[in-house]
Amino acid sequence: MREDMLKSILSDLNGSSADIEASAVISTDGLMMASLLPAGLEEERIGAMGAALLALGARTAQELSRGELEQVLLKGSQGYVLLTGAGRDAVLAVMAKPSAKLGLIFLDVRRAAENTAKIV
Amino acid sequence: MREDMLKSILSDLNGSSADIEASAVISTDGLMMASLLPAGLEEERIGAMGAALLALGARTAQELSRGELEQVLLKGSQGYVLLTGAGRDAVLAVMAKPSAKLGLIFLDVRRAAENTAKIV
Repeated sequence: MREDMLKSILSDLNGSSADIEASAVISTDGLMMASLLPAGLEEERIGAMGAALLALGARTAQELSRGELEQVLLKGSQGYVLLTGAGRDAVLAVMAKPSAKLGLIFLDVRRAAENTAKIV
Repeated sequence: MREDMLKSILSDLNGSSADIEASAVISTDGLMMASLLPAGLEEERIGAMGAALLALGARTAQELSRGELEQVLLKGSQGYVLLTGAGRDAVLAVMAKPSAKLGLIFLDVRRAAENTAKIV
């Protein structure tokens, strides 16, 4: 039931831009809550890498006086990974193409993260 | 000599926006090459956290089919950390206030990274 509601948010998000390739809601300890992934991307891999990045990102933000971690963005030659906090217990992970317009993606992801936070 | 040239790039960068609080050039293994930091921020801490983030970011980008890592952005409640590749051997690390306009920061940092890559 909650998984269906989360999947509906992810479906809207993936549909909001052709540049969004995959999205998932993961717990802050790296377990999958819901996902819409293309074939070839494993849930466990995203959960594990996401949780590791969040932990290190939070520690870095603290050590460098940046406060509470809210978002992590990775830009690679083949596209983006964006992790956004969705309430205290969940994180919205999004993968986008290198052609993505970040301003639009940030906006759509922030809305989806707010909706996710209400459900989780 | 090279350190002076790098410091000059960092000085121009920090001067380009009042939202940029600190900048540094670090080697990809986390050693400091040049820095312009406010009191209270230790070089070693930035180098160590930067190198750890880069290593994990590169692995994540690879595992999630995002290609070669080009940039890492952390957004915290108290500001941003931005790591940008500057050639093969160096990384430009920038800390900015939460009020920073990311579009401007990205532009200035990209130029500074290109200039850094020519020197390192």
